[in-house]
Amino acid sequence: MKKIGIMTSGGDSPGMNGAIRAAVRAAINYGMTPYGILSGYKGMIEGSIFELKHSDVSNIISRGGTILQTARSLEFKTEEGQKKAVANLEKYGIEGLVVIGGDGSLSGAKVLDEKFGIKSIGIPGSIDNDIYGTDVSLGVDTALNVIMDSIDMINNTASSHGRTFVIEVMGRHCGYLAVMAGIATGADAVIIPEVEPDLAGIAEKFKKRAADCKTRNILIVAEGAGSAYDFGKKLQEAGTFDARITVLGHVQRGGFPTYFDRVLGSRMGAAAVEGLMNGKTAVMTGLQGNQIKFVPYEEVFSKRHELNNNIIKLLDDLA
Amino acid sequence: MKKIGIMTSGGDSPGMNGAIRAAVRAAINYGMTPYGILSGYKGMIEGSIFELKHSDVSNIISRGGTILQTARSLEFKTEEGQKKAVANLEKYGIEGLVVIGGDGSLSGAKVLDEKFGIKSIGIPGSIDNDIYGTDVSLGVDTALNVIMDSIDMINNTASSHGRTFVIEVMGRHCGYLAVMAGIATGADAVIIPEVEPDLAGIAEKFKKRAADCKTRNILIVAEGAGSAYDFGKKLQEAGTFDARITVLGHVQRGGFPTYFDRVLGSRMGAAAVEGLMNGKTAVMTGLQGNQIKFVPYEEVFSKRHELNNNIIKLLDDLA
Amino acid sequence: MKKIGIMTSGGDSPGMNGAIRAAVRAAINYGMTPYGILSGYKGMIEGSIFELKHSDVSNIISRGGTILQTARSLEFKTEEGQKKAVANLEKYGIEGLVVIGGDGSLSGAKVLDEKFGIKSIGIPGSIDNDIYGTDVSLGVDTALNVIMDSIDMINNTASSHGRTFVIEVMGRHCGYLAVMAGIATGADAVIIPEVEPDLAGIAEKFKKRAADCKTRNILIVAEGAGSAYDFGKKLQEAGTFDARITVLGHVQRGGFPTYFDRVLGSRMGAAAVEGLMNGKTAVMTGLQGNQIKFVPYEEVFSKRHELNNNIIKLLDDLA
Amino acid sequence: MKKIGIMTSGGDSPGMNGAIRAAVRAAINYGMTPYGILSGYKGMIEGSIFELKHSDVSNIISRGGTILQTARSLEFKTEEGQKKAVANLEKYGIEGLVVIGGDGSLSGAKVLDEKFGIKSIGIPGSIDNDIYGTDVSLGVDTALNVIMDSIDMINNTASSHGRTFVIEVMGRHCGYLAVMAGIATGADAVIIPEVEPDLAGIAEKFKKRAADCKTRNILIVAEGAGSAYDFGKKLQEAGTFDARITVLGHVQRGGFPTYFDRVLGSRMGAAAVEGLMNGKTAVMTGLQGNQIKFVPYEEVFSKRHELNNNIIKLLDDLA
Repeated sequence: MKKIGIMTSGGDSPGMNGAIRAAVRAAINYGMTPYGILSGYKGMIEGSIFELKHSDVSNIISRGGTILQTARSLEFKTEEGQKKAVANLEKYGIEGLVVIGGDGSLSGAKVLDEKFGIKSIGIPGSIDNDIYGTDVSLGVDTALNVIMDSIDMINNTASSHGRTFVIEVMGRHCGYLAVMAGIATGADAVIIPEVEPDLAGIAEKFKKRAADCKTRNILIVAEGAGSAYDFGKKLQEAGTFDARITVLGHVQRGGFPTYFDRVLGSRMGAAAVEGLMNGKTAVMTGLQGNQIKFVPYEEVFSKRHELNNNIIKLLDDLA
Repeated sequence: MKKIGIMTSGGDSPGMNGAIRAAVRAAINYGMTPYGILSGYKGMIEGSIFELKHSDVSNIISRGGTILQTARSLEFKTEEGQKKAVANLEKYGIEGLVVIGGDGSLSGAKVLDEKFGIKSIGIPGSIDNDIYGTDVSLGVDTALNVIMDSIDMINNTASSHGRTFVIEVMGRHCGYLAVMAGIATGADAVIIPEVEPDLAGIAEKFKKRAADCKTRNILIVAEGAGSAYDFGKKLQEAGTFDARITVLGHVQRGGFPTYFDRVLGSRMGAAAVEGLMNGKTAVMTGLQGNQIKFVPYEEVFSKRHELNNNIIKLLDDLA
Repeated sequence: MKKIGIMTSGGDSPGMNGAIRAAVRAAINYGMTPYGILSGYKGMIEGSIFELKHSDVSNIISRGGTILQTARSLEFKTEEGQKKAVANLEKYGIEGLVVIGGDGSLSGAKVLDEKFGIKSIGIPGSIDNDIYGTDVSLGVDTALNVIMDSIDMINNTASSHGRTFVIEVMGRHCGYLAVMAGIATGADAVIIPEVEPDLAGIAEKFKKRAADCKTRNILIVAEGAGSAYDFGKKLQEAGTFDARITVLGHVQRGGFPTYFDRVLGSRMGAAAVEGLMNGKTAVMTGLQGNQIKFVPYEEVFSKRHELNNNIIKLLDDLA
Repeated sequence: MKKIGIMTSGGDSPGMNGAIRAAVRAAINYGMTPYGILSGYKGMIEGSIFELKHSDVSNIISRGGTILQTARSLEFKTEEGQKKAVANLEKYGIEGLVVIGGDGSLSGAKVLDEKFGIKSIGIPGSIDNDIYGTDVSLGVDTALNVIMDSIDMINNTASSHGRTFVIEVMGRHCGYLAVMAGIATGADAVIIPEVEPDLAGIAEKFKKRAADCKTRNILIVAEGAGSAYDFGKKLQEAGTFDARITVLGHVQRGGFPTYFDRVLGSRMGAAAVEGLMNGKTAVMTGLQGNQIKFVPYEEVFSKRHELNNNIIKLLDDLA
């Protein structure tokens, strides 16, 4: 393999730049020429492809987002779009891809592999930690620290006023961010998609706390479980709590990468290139324990990343 | 004066703990006994009053919010409520007050001074910077750094996607936070209550940027000028921008105090006690240049804190 | 088991407070009474022991250091000291211990178990990541983020001046912090105890960079490999580099715990109490992959925590 | 004036990039062409001069250090060096300069003005806050927040061990950073060049605290007053304190600019260009209260920036 393409796709996540940097430098070390594909499959179709030199990725490891940008592409879902994309790869002589993104992005890579024989290795980039086959996806650690810092600050004002706050965090259909943030901030309750919400129980708990002169309450809601506004209303109906609502929003996605995400991105980026070198394709780099393993796309798509029950229980035990 | 009461009232703001600490220790240095009044005028009415020792305020200078807590009190707006409050002050022998809070809080202190002869010195605590008589209120610096950090993060994801973001910041009827954050983050446009919004002009500007391949746009909206959701909608009607909305919310209020707010709180807290010692009353500590001055309540309420026109112009010039 | 003692010992590390909080609350949930032992074995000998209530550990999860304080105790190394300590535990009816600290601290627990039958479960608290049996010790993640932030800042000024910086980081006899920080910050070279330093090679590399107009160099030195001042001098002897030296010092130990260390502390604290409940003793909680396992003290002391060779290689490949 | 040069010189300080960005954009707004001069007077002599476009300064406002780099130039102190520098300015048709740096940098600009008629406006960039004519120099606010965060962290570990720490901060011959950091962190004592150190008094104070069971002590030393190591030794000689020493070092200079330094840099950069436009020369932009004023170089060099006595007293009163 002489030329490889590197791209980020879907939602951006912190650490992607570390993965890009590592893939570029590993490729150069192996004597390959790395190319950047701008804006994911959209750029692949439009031919936004350019060589990446060693110095092009200097000093990017500390930056949030992705220097290769990202976009969603409807055209790539069509046969015609895919053919355009493949034609562009051929034009540049690109034989293999490093695809950094969520499951939608890896699905695209799977299609290119199966239908057109384009080799690829995926890197799980997603703050939601909803991808099967890796203990943790690129960006989760940074997102959780951003969420934690935000909730610590809200906690300051909540404590000063003795108020109830309902805070909505990201995570799509997955409660990972909510639960982990809940443990880390000492939240009083968490509502997640994986568990039927017990509003009455939460209201009861808050009343007990109030009887104990603890009028500050923090309830974290995972977006996949519903809206913080709705739960805030229901909570008020269930009791007398005048809850304030905060939707943390896009700050969760845009954090400056932590040590963990910089190292994870570096390891996965280098491993992906090494995998391509060794003829691997249609696999994703997964962090399993302390090791980077290759997980077949098949397996990635066949299962869901489950939330550990012990972790859910831990939050309740410590609150 | 032998005994003074210290309280925080209205919305909490970072730096209040530094002011409390300084007031307590300055009072002790002058041989006075400082008392904490919990939850502002509510606690004054309810008699939640207790002595504060030197060590009670150890290590609080770095904490957000206010250890004395704060609340709004409807009862204090009544003659009856005020009499209860005054009775409690008399019960504890409290002859003077340090009142830390916004203009509502200082209004209460003015009433106590005029109707009941309770001496007081106010400290302007408000992240909105809307109080006349001080260049900057306690908490503004911290709030602006929190807002800036948040917008930097949103900028990371906005740049990765080439997207338009509309970000709503606090400030009540005042555009100070929005304008300053706009300059500090290199925002593309700002909408504030002080200036008639020009949506068409902003849409035009964003179109020009898009023609220049700059599809990332950051528009900051001061809450006093309207809702980010409304302006986002209008922007979409005026062009083709698919704007994302973020309402920063209560994180803006709960930040961990910066160096500036810790020092400002310390200076104002000590100055307030010194003022009481020297027989001053019905004045607010104001930062004017590098000096702490005493500004009569009369004057504080008679004018509005105006946003410097040069600053508004600067943002447009640099964007 | 009705009463347990909780203590921190040796060097403090971020996340200890999360472990204390979890141990206290888990114990209360199991119907046990948790006691805090102040300043480790020193307090055990002096009888600084007191009950810890649920609310005593409120809001401590976000704080650095340890609320139970820590100290080194020479007296505990003597038979007489140990007997005093055991007598105090008996006085309070404490049947089991949660010991949070480094290998010295766990050695003490081992002695108490073997000689006096005092049951204990250890929690590895050490920023150096030098404890065998756990992928990562409590405090490592926070320390690495603090180190990374510091080096990012030094990088700003180094880049502005085109200067060489030699930065000394902690880690005792272990190069983990240095290597991981090196990858995360894109450092140009790292010197660690595990690998013979190649000053000539580093000087050569820096000269090549200079020929390439890259006059900024970052060299990270693990304290166990020698002093940054010495290596700076040697570097100057080996070439013409006017190196600036920074010894990061105790900031590395005092960080405010990250999400990871708060959750790890919570999990380990709860697991330790559960282990005591189930009759376990003389084992340490270890994070292995995503699981908390119990590792016998024997095993912990029998081996060294090795630095992964791939990780060392990765740094060189990406620099 | 059609063409202006912009440069940073001497030690770098946070906010310089904001000033560069503002100067570039203000110049373009006025119809002038801005040029960057690399590495200060060194680059002026070597002819490292290039046009700066609007987009060249995009996204730099949030970055530490200076994109124009900085260096010290011995050659510029010679008549010959100055002539080379002036010849290069003439070559590019540069008629005026914006010089961002400390007093050494402004001295250079004064020479160019007086001997060669090169117009210039200075911007005080220095973390030490030792420049007369401005309440605060560019970079001071960021440096103080970095120092404060570091001392907060050291405080965590100091409190856990009940230890004495001596912490050395920057500031050259000026105690500003030490005193302000002392107030902001609640330090127990500060040693600065402006006041004769009273080691015996400090040792006495620490002994009193120890008698009060407060064994944690924080002593901040300004570098201009001597070395932290020396004071640590003297303290041990004066009592029994086993003091730990930390020299904060270059992190203090390399911080990511705060809101305040970004706005101050923006204001000063724009004002400097406006001044040149209006025919001003040999003046420095100074922040006086809320206003940017022009202060003649003469005046800047004629006096010293004095530390406010009330501030020194405040620290002692509150400790």
